[in-house]
Amino acid sequence: MRLPDGFEMASGAAGIKPSGKSDLALLYSPVPLHWAFASTRNRLIAPCVQRNRARYASGEPVRAVVVNAGNANCATGDRGTWDNEDMAGMSASALALARPQDVLTASTGVIGRRLPTERIEAALPDLVQSMRSDSNGFEDAILTTDLRTKKVARTLRSGARVVGIAKGSGMIHPDMATMLAFVVTDAAVGQDELRAMWPGLIDRSFNQVTVDGDTSPNDMALLLSSARADADLDELRDALGAVTTQLAQMIARDGEGATTLITVRASHARDDAEARRAARAVARSSLVKAAVHGRDPNWGRILSAAGQTGVRIDLAHVRIALQGIDVFRGEPLPVDLERISRAMHDVEEVVIEIDLAAGDGEGTAWGCDLSADYVSINADYTT
Amino acid sequence: MRLPDGFEMASGAAGIKPSGKSDLALLYSPVPLHWAFASTRNRLIAPCVQRNRARYASGEPVRAVVVNAGNANCATGDRGTWDNEDMAGMSASALALARPQDVLTASTGVIGRRLPTERIEAALPDLVQSMRSDSNGFEDAILTTDLRTKKVARTLRSGARVVGIAKGSGMIHPDMATMLAFVVTDAAVGQDELRAMWPGLIDRSFNQVTVDGDTSPNDMALLLSSARADADLDELRDALGAVTTQLAQMIARDGEGATTLITVRASHARDDAEARRAARAVARSSLVKAAVHGRDPNWGRILSAAGQTGVRIDLAHVRIALQGIDVFRGEPLPVDLERISRAMHDVEEVVIEIDLAAGDGEGTAWGCDLSADYVSINADYTT
Repeated sequence: MRLPDGFEMASGAAGIKPSGKSDLALLYSPVPLHWAFASTRNRLIAPCVQRNRARYASGEPVRAVVVNAGNANCATGDRGTWDNEDMAGMSASALALARPQDVLTASTGVIGRRLPTERIEAALPDLVQSMRSDSNGFEDAILTTDLRTKKVARTLRSGARVVGIAKGSGMIHPDMATMLAFVVTDAAVGQDELRAMWPGLIDRSFNQVTVDGDTSPNDMALLLSSARADADLDELRDALGAVTTQLAQMIARDGEGATTLITVRASHARDDAEARRAARAVARSSLVKAAVHGRDPNWGRILSAAGQTGVRIDLAHVRIALQGIDVFRGEPLPVDLERISRAMHDVEEVVIEIDLAAGDGEGTAWGCDLSADYVSINADYTT
Repeated sequence: MRLPDGFEMASGAAGIKPSGKSDLALLYSPVPLHWAFASTRNRLIAPCVQRNRARYASGEPVRAVVVNAGNANCATGDRGTWDNEDMAGMSASALALARPQDVLTASTGVIGRRLPTERIEAALPDLVQSMRSDSNGFEDAILTTDLRTKKVARTLRSGARVVGIAKGSGMIHPDMATMLAFVVTDAAVGQDELRAMWPGLIDRSFNQVTVDGDTSPNDMALLLSSARADADLDELRDALGAVTTQLAQMIARDGEGATTLITVRASHARDDAEARRAARAVARSSLVKAAVHGRDPNWGRILSAAGQTGVRIDLAHVRIALQGIDVFRGEPLPVDLERISRAMHDVEEVVIEIDLAAGDGEGTAWGCDLSADYVSINADYTT
């Protein structure tokens, strides 16, 4: 996949993953990049998140991002902070950049193990040599328990491009996953505009994905612009919205043990924030997830999950639909539940709609079903 | 189990559960009872909860409680409200009580199906005939997916007694469970004192149980006193604390699909509320639950689950112990993880301790491991 103008990528195997698979990725630009950044709300944060937050606050542009998979470099004490600094410094050297501050870092993988920086240092020269203006295996190198790569592109009328790459198989599995997203564009947009639009886009996409309700100390989403091509701001925002939303769906679909994407659309909430909250609570509920897995049109669990968020609901006028079929409208409807169960079989996506009858707010969340495989993936993975 | 003075109970099969098992229970007192009440925080509430809240606000004493299992009478529209009123009225008639208001109601079971009140009416006379001063099968009649009955008693120095009976197999499974607790005592304590102490006791016991993080529209915990025997207030509070805590543990241990009780003790939090919140988050985490199921001493998940609550944590001084063995103290300790995994095998309880190094707050939560059985119980149950 060709990258927007002004971006190059590379990837390789540094030997961080025990499997020997590709585990180190570089993103580089010959020009200073505008960037926006969103990161985990977890109080436990990895050194890479901490450092990127400080870089973000400086307001300075960046030139590169180095990402490793297989080791989260998290809860590793003061040494972890230095190791993360080293990873940035080594990458700056290999890329012949004057300042380590020009490089952002991201790590994902096992918590509490020291990062093997010497392996990263040894692998970097080959990566720099193989740098190209396409994604070049970046999308593979950042994976942990993911089964599929996640990559989306959009082209604007002006010819400007947006390419997004993400990983995540669960909003988090703190010892073997994390949500990382890197969105690059050559659309010429000021850093202030970029930073102003990113949080809202994140709230409607990555923050609406839930696999197991957990967040990671390493979660981050980066937006980088080389500002090489003209672009209409509204059109760019729409393209970014499409890319982030699609990546979010891909993450939910690839949830650990998942067989089915669950899309929850909440409407007529008091406001958009309440709609998003209600949708997320339904997508997060273990009971709803297990019911979808069993193709059980169990609307009581949906209503109860939305109810426990505390968002305003007018129960007398609530409407719930499963796969487009109304099952509840203020009271249970005399529907054939067997028919709805059949409509949930042999599909890749189950759509749940809930109308809260409390206002004009709308919001969507994505999750996946809960299978016995989720349990065995997370129970049998040995520390 | 003998009840405190001034209480009688009865139970029977009204035909609400398709299995034909016992599903209707009565609690009665020849004297007016002081009472305290706590109920679900879910916005979706069943008519029984709504009615009891109104009764509670009146401040009037009560004489009886009628409980049915197998049908939650929830999300049943206006008819559900009338059916619940009918259940109270029928019980008052059968007990020869002048006012339906003297009877509290509780329902647990499937959501969204009409309550078969005529079956309840037909069964009540036999129950009233068989009323006795012991629990008389009450603990069986209120069960849904529970595998075990939950009953605890304490005797005070004065001879006053406390008997607690609960049900719940999961903090909730909205269509086939709910947490119900009934604690009765003959300790002579004023209604104001009773009502003042109940919320704190609930916060330390039932509100610290999590099986799947969901709450039910029907959850309630009732405390009733016949005020027949002298009692020291502090001693009574301790006895009530012991009874509610033990019932809470029994509910966690009987979580759907559970093989192991998980006890999480948080210490040195900013305050008790933050300690309880952190402990609950760890006990609730699907990743921690799956790790315990797999006997994986995965402390990274524990740290991350506590971190995402937003409670104050001093990471440089955090201490984590599993089965009494320290694994993290500001940084990972060089411990033999195999040894800790062995200490987690063949036990009924796994104890997780987390010292947040942020104050003097303490709190405990109880949960259970996440097994493939949980998934199949909740996926294969057909509406």
